[in-house]
Amino acid sequence: MMDRPLLMKQLLWRAERVFGDKRIISRTGDGEDFGYTYAEYAVRVRKLAQALTALGVRPGDRVGTLAWNTHRHYEAYFGVPCMGAVLHTVNLRLFDEQIAYIINHGGDRVLLIDPDQIPLVERLAPDLPAVQAYVVLADEVPETTLSPVHSYEELLAAQDGKLEFPDFPETTASAMCYTSGTTGDPKGVLYSHRSVVLHTLALCLHGSIGVREEAIFLAISPMFHANSWGIPFAAALQGATLVLPGPHPEPKHYLELIDRHEVTHAVGAVTIGVMMRDLLERDDPHYDVSSLEVLWLGGQAPPRGLMKWFADTHGIVVPQGWGMTEASPLVTFTALKSKHDHVAEDEVYDVRGKQGLPLPLCEVRLVDEGGEDLPWDGKAVGEYHLRSPWMANAYYDDPRGPASYDAQGWFKTGDVGVIDPDGYVQLTDRSKDLIKSGGEWISSVELENSLMAHPAVAEASVVAVPHDKWLERPLACVVTRAPVTSEELTAHLSEHFARWWIPEEFLFVDAIPKTGVGKFDKKVLRARFGDADARRRYRAEASR
Amino acid sequence: MMDRPLLMKQLLWRAERVFGDKRIISRTGDGEDFGYTYAEYAVRVRKLAQALTALGVRPGDRVGTLAWNTHRHYEAYFGVPCMGAVLHTVNLRLFDEQIAYIINHGGDRVLLIDPDQIPLVERLAPDLPAVQAYVVLADEVPETTLSPVHSYEELLAAQDGKLEFPDFPETTASAMCYTSGTTGDPKGVLYSHRSVVLHTLALCLHGSIGVREEAIFLAISPMFHANSWGIPFAAALQGATLVLPGPHPEPKHYLELIDRHEVTHAVGAVTIGVMMRDLLERDDPHYDVSSLEVLWLGGQAPPRGLMKWFADTHGIVVPQGWGMTEASPLVTFTALKSKHDHVAEDEVYDVRGKQGLPLPLCEVRLVDEGGEDLPWDGKAVGEYHLRSPWMANAYYDDPRGPASYDAQGWFKTGDVGVIDPDGYVQLTDRSKDLIKSGGEWISSVELENSLMAHPAVAEASVVAVPHDKWLERPLACVVTRAPVTSEELTAHLSEHFARWWIPEEFLFVDAIPKTGVGKFDKKVLRARFGDADARRRYRAEASR
Repeated sequence: MMDRPLLMKQLLWRAERVFGDKRIISRTGDGEDFGYTYAEYAVRVRKLAQALTALGVRPGDRVGTLAWNTHRHYEAYFGVPCMGAVLHTVNLRLFDEQIAYIINHGGDRVLLIDPDQIPLVERLAPDLPAVQAYVVLADEVPETTLSPVHSYEELLAAQDGKLEFPDFPETTASAMCYTSGTTGDPKGVLYSHRSVVLHTLALCLHGSIGVREEAIFLAISPMFHANSWGIPFAAALQGATLVLPGPHPEPKHYLELIDRHEVTHAVGAVTIGVMMRDLLERDDPHYDVSSLEVLWLGGQAPPRGLMKWFADTHGIVVPQGWGMTEASPLVTFTALKSKHDHVAEDEVYDVRGKQGLPLPLCEVRLVDEGGEDLPWDGKAVGEYHLRSPWMANAYYDDPRGPASYDAQGWFKTGDVGVIDPDGYVQLTDRSKDLIKSGGEWISSVELENSLMAHPAVAEASVVAVPHDKWLERPLACVVTRAPVTSEELTAHLSEHFARWWIPEEFLFVDAIPKTGVGKFDKKVLRARFGDADARRRYRAEASR
Repeated sequence: MMDRPLLMKQLLWRAERVFGDKRIISRTGDGEDFGYTYAEYAVRVRKLAQALTALGVRPGDRVGTLAWNTHRHYEAYFGVPCMGAVLHTVNLRLFDEQIAYIINHGGDRVLLIDPDQIPLVERLAPDLPAVQAYVVLADEVPETTLSPVHSYEELLAAQDGKLEFPDFPETTASAMCYTSGTTGDPKGVLYSHRSVVLHTLALCLHGSIGVREEAIFLAISPMFHANSWGIPFAAALQGATLVLPGPHPEPKHYLELIDRHEVTHAVGAVTIGVMMRDLLERDDPHYDVSSLEVLWLGGQAPPRGLMKWFADTHGIVVPQGWGMTEASPLVTFTALKSKHDHVAEDEVYDVRGKQGLPLPLCEVRLVDEGGEDLPWDGKAVGEYHLRSPWMANAYYDDPRGPASYDAQGWFKTGDVGVIDPDGYVQLTDRSKDLIKSGGEWISSVELENSLMAHPAVAEASVVAVPHDKWLERPLACVVTRAPVTSEELTAHLSEHFARWWIPEEFLFVDAIPKTGVGKFDKKVLRARFGDADARRRYRAEASR
């Protein structure tokens, strides 16, 4: 066959040539949204590549970004990889030291930064020896100590956009993303042109989120986190309208954008979905979300009550997916099967509550502690091992990477759960989040989901705390939406779980700490409340 | 990234593990259809690989098939490639000498043949020195002179199905198909595991035929022709129900199968669509086709009247695609865009009459005779050049192959037409089917489509015949469904075309000769009617 490599420029080609009149909309935060066509976009993508070349960026060099979901960030999404350089999206929600570590470890030569990130980068600049130029994603450069510093728009204005992107091997690195690093230093996951193209196709399939031309996609998930789940690439390939929520987005902005641009599909974290629900319930101001068909919530399993609320109140389907930064990120998606057409609503939600079916080309194994295959019977609990063409097989310049792979190339996810006979993956826990009490496993995730299904509970996170007799016991940290007591929650859980699963202790907290990508940060909870004395002090404090 | 190769066994994995209870149905021709699940299917696929290994087939060896669309043929579709051998599907509708040439040129070691093909193979066997074994796709072997000869079912019964298919490079050849060869000897197109996997993904995308789990697909297009357009592979990947029409299928069998199995999608040649329409119009017997949503017709453009008839009478959408054996086969597909949601019906059919949008990863160029790019303005006429990862770049053991490619890897299709600003490809002709009359081009395809839109015309083919003054003039060969005169057809065409486009001569024939894959065989028409005396004789004959 023809050895035509899989290159990201082919996605851009289709956006420009086949869907040149379709639009990209970017919230500026100044009241009026910015908008232009894929044809206009593609010219600017080429101008960016020319400008970066003029700044000395060469194939293989890393170009870092500290930026929100904006049209300029999106220009870098194609401009940097298509010239053969590597786009390094840095999570701007991390701590200073982590950001500096990541930029230095990645060896970024140029940093593209949003104007509001200038104070942060000024603090870090003395510790970023490899960075040779700063580019502010704005019309002009505000007063700053950064040097040398350029205005993005001035750089682009100096170019003509006449450029043919080169061919190179499809295994060439295209982008890089550091995992949030729940233990140890963050690890850099490298994507290739091949992996991005294949993952993009997967997002456009029937049975996946199915990005298509008619859809208007709001990309809530940050572009600095796992490629915004690949939505920006898929939107280009299929010519979907792409709506980017801009700087410092809040839930009300998402609802405004959905209302204003008749968004049909939105993609973001479960916690965002919870906040959107709360705003819609309040209905002041009123948002018209009747255009929204699908709200894909990921990062963790959306509680059944949340899925049902969106479906019953607004006719919005809430599917979920399971993935990880190392997997580009998507592995499974909760497509229903035709056999579910005529089952009871409750059974449908049983399926929707699972993480879904493996996407095409994603092979999943369920293995026991000895590495033996377990049956897909919905009962046997094991760790998931993955193999797919869009799975990273090592971390950038990091000796720890390959340790996650076995000899046959299976990636050990650290995620634990079951697979049912229909092929639905159902996560019960990260293996380190399982609670082992008296020699038996307790799933923190199942307890959390059940707690969050209680109408008075906004968020709940369950962690293991040390126990003299049982070694570990579950502790439930709960954020309430309405008054509720420990006794009421105990009664609620007792309807669903064996007695020894029920937490003895409930802590009512103002908020669950989140990681930089919006997941419950159980590490923080364990550190803060692992000690019984600390819990007592917290309760005494709270009752005053 | 992980160097996980793209292998066809990954498609099979998903069919077996994720959609193991979904069904494959195969018409036996004995009244009762055969049916089993993908889980049962996958075991037999492995048994076939074991049986072929026992017969001496090694990786890289060619295994030929002379078979209809049946479940056993489908088992070979995966069994042969997944063991590393090459499936060579031979078109059983060709002439004896062509079939012998193809089998010998391909160097097939084993032939899998349907029982009704035994007389053919017995005739050819003395001229097939490389074939080492014949396998009859049946429970037992009928009386035959073939030797050594085996029963397929007996071979499988001797195996246990316990086999792990090996890994190998994704560029490994998986299948082979000879083009029908309108000029010179047939040419063997080689597919790879990579090209099959990528083409399969393309068929499952939104904006393509979109194979999905809920669908029930009737694969009318022969499995010996361009992989039955890839439908069998896509059905496995997505777990769609696959209905195979079995031996000696006729249009009435397709309608019976649609009725009996509530088929939602059918895929076949335009000529089949015409015959199905005629049967449905007759309504005796009555077929219930209310389940059918989509009838994808390819091979040539479906006439507007046919598309409208299916839509208006049965609510069936008739999309088309454009492809070729070298392209696996699909290149474009007529997806509508959201901008067509609110346009008039006529405009929708203008779009549906085009060959469609380039699929993801398919790059198309329109070039003039000097090789320069032409604009996509819907007016400039040029030849299409193609580039895609599922485009064959050479023919098997054939020095003519690479001549179709230029230095940048573009394949010169020989097809001629325009591309509109929305990216829709609209073929006007094979370059050799254009008629050059008085220095001006006349499109035979446009004349044919217009003629076939006339209610009295069943089929029409227009070819160039030599002319003293204009060098070439169009000759229309017409099959009628109702009485009609040359004068009426001239008046009909005059509504749409300039006077010099209108054929002076109409020949009323009983049938248009077809190639082995059901396309109008213009070569035959030109040979039979190119001479004015021959036309006179034909008319005199016909009027008696």
